[in-house]
Amino acid sequence: MERSDRTLIIIGGKEDRANNKVILSEVARRVGSGKLVVTTVAMTNGTDQLFEQYEKAFRALGVKHLYNLEISEREQATLPSKVKILDDATGVFFTGGDQLKITSQIGDTPIFERIREIYDDGGVIAGTSAGAAVMSETMLVEGGDENSHVIGGSVRMAPGLGLISGVIVDQHFMERGRFGRLMGAVAQNPKNLGVGIDEQTAIVVERGNGFYVLGSGGVYVIDGTQVTYSNIAEEDMRKTLSIYNVRMHMLSQGDRFDLLNRSPRQMKGRAAEKLPEKEEEQETATV
Amino acid sequence: MERSDRTLIIIGGKEDRANNKVILSEVARRVGSGKLVVTTVAMTNGTDQLFEQYEKAFRALGVKHLYNLEISEREQATLPSKVKILDDATGVFFTGGDQLKITSQIGDTPIFERIREIYDDGGVIAGTSAGAAVMSETMLVEGGDENSHVIGGSVRMAPGLGLISGVIVDQHFMERGRFGRLMGAVAQNPKNLGVGIDEQTAIVVERGNGFYVLGSGGVYVIDGTQVTYSNIAEEDMRKTLSIYNVRMHMLSQGDRFDLLNRSPRQMKGRAAEKLPEKEEEQETATV
Repeated sequence: MERSDRTLIIIGGKEDRANNKVILSEVARRVGSGKLVVTTVAMTNGTDQLFEQYEKAFRALGVKHLYNLEISEREQATLPSKVKILDDATGVFFTGGDQLKITSQIGDTPIFERIREIYDDGGVIAGTSAGAAVMSETMLVEGGDENSHVIGGSVRMAPGLGLISGVIVDQHFMERGRFGRLMGAVAQNPKNLGVGIDEQTAIVVERGNGFYVLGSGGVYVIDGTQVTYSNIAEEDMRKTLSIYNVRMHMLSQGDRFDLLNRSPRQMKGRAAEKLPEKEEEQETATV
Repeated sequence: MERSDRTLIIIGGKEDRANNKVILSEVARRVGSGKLVVTTVAMTNGTDQLFEQYEKAFRALGVKHLYNLEISEREQATLPSKVKILDDATGVFFTGGDQLKITSQIGDTPIFERIREIYDDGGVIAGTSAGAAVMSETMLVEGGDENSHVIGGSVRMAPGLGLISGVIVDQHFMERGRFGRLMGAVAQNPKNLGVGIDEQTAIVVERGNGFYVLGSGGVYVIDGTQVTYSNIAEEDMRKTLSIYNVRMHMLSQGDRFDLLNRSPRQMKGRAAEKLPEKEEEQETATV
């Protein structure tokens, strides 16, 4: 593949793994005859069962070269035997779990260097839930569900893997009432575009400069460029956020977004037409 | 009072009734030495206990003339003995419960005519939760919690009391993940401004042309005037809403909003300064 083909598939969680698998199909399609590595680094327990779920799904979608990269301690992320699993890989898939486990265990290690290389060489890096959160430079870690943002509130952020810049991603977006916390993140620095992704929904980021939506839910783009006032820097930490003149787009399958000029447009062709029915809730071990 | 003083106090639910009572204080302050009628028409059971809660709260806030208007069937809304309770009233307070009970039982009855008169004569009409939803011409009744809006989805609307026009109000806003459904309502007709009010938070609408925020949470204003595209009228009812270029303001205590030119600004003085601490969750019979 050429460098220009590099792709991120950022999934809001609970993507279908058993039925029509709209989102995982896209991962499989882009991996093609290449090699896909699934990593359960975000998980502590149940990693085998989780890998098996993905293995079954991806095999059914025609992925022939599929490997499991399990890392339960940071030390392992430096072992040549682990790095070797990523040899010749053209795709990496991060499962859900805990985003801090991902960054604390592979950040600044040979494993991450290799993943970065795979991406830069034109590969596909996909992640769901915690695996989606880690894509951006700064990631949302905890807090703020079902609440408006309070200036000194409990929302925690941490440095992510930084595969995409200028964007802060949040997942399980409407399902967990995360509008407030993403607004808080954008208010703190409007250079970042807030992108909130629903469950069973993904953005496919092509060449880092635009994305389209895949799946049954919504994607919320929060643009603070034109904000005229916010109280985010006030001293009284008990205050609820106030911010004027936010521009927002709500996107769904059939929409594309240009990250360079921050504008949405309708897309035509395949992805716009094949609309998946709402998937049934699945029972899975992941968050 | 003069006609120009008429006020709506629209509360997102769970306002404090036991401690500092920031929102109920404002109701009491505006009723002053006048007569306040609390109506539990939205409730089926437990109306006595609920009235007692409000009675205790309002008496503690200095309201001397306080009456209970209980209506359990539509027939009662035409009885002279019930209408009489509203004689000389300068304030009416709608408790929470079921918004359809309010509109179906008092819509187009002498009771509602009288309430409308009280308002037009410069009185204060307040409502919390279901009592807040009924204020607008069209009210949100059910569905859509914690989900992005689906075109043919389960969100139900119904005609409200119409005390404020050009606005659709939603309550328990962040707490119940109602961003999606309010976006759906605005997409259907952007002439309506969407106003989502958190719990323990209220808007005080003065003379119908502007409001300020009171309480500890946020108020979300969704303005569809500049929307450039939406798929709301598409035939495929399974599609998730898509809408571009929504303007949004998130307001909190200290902010004022002009409904005529749809613009926010910071306010000065009393209401901006006295910030209530976040109230503790209360156990109450209402929704």
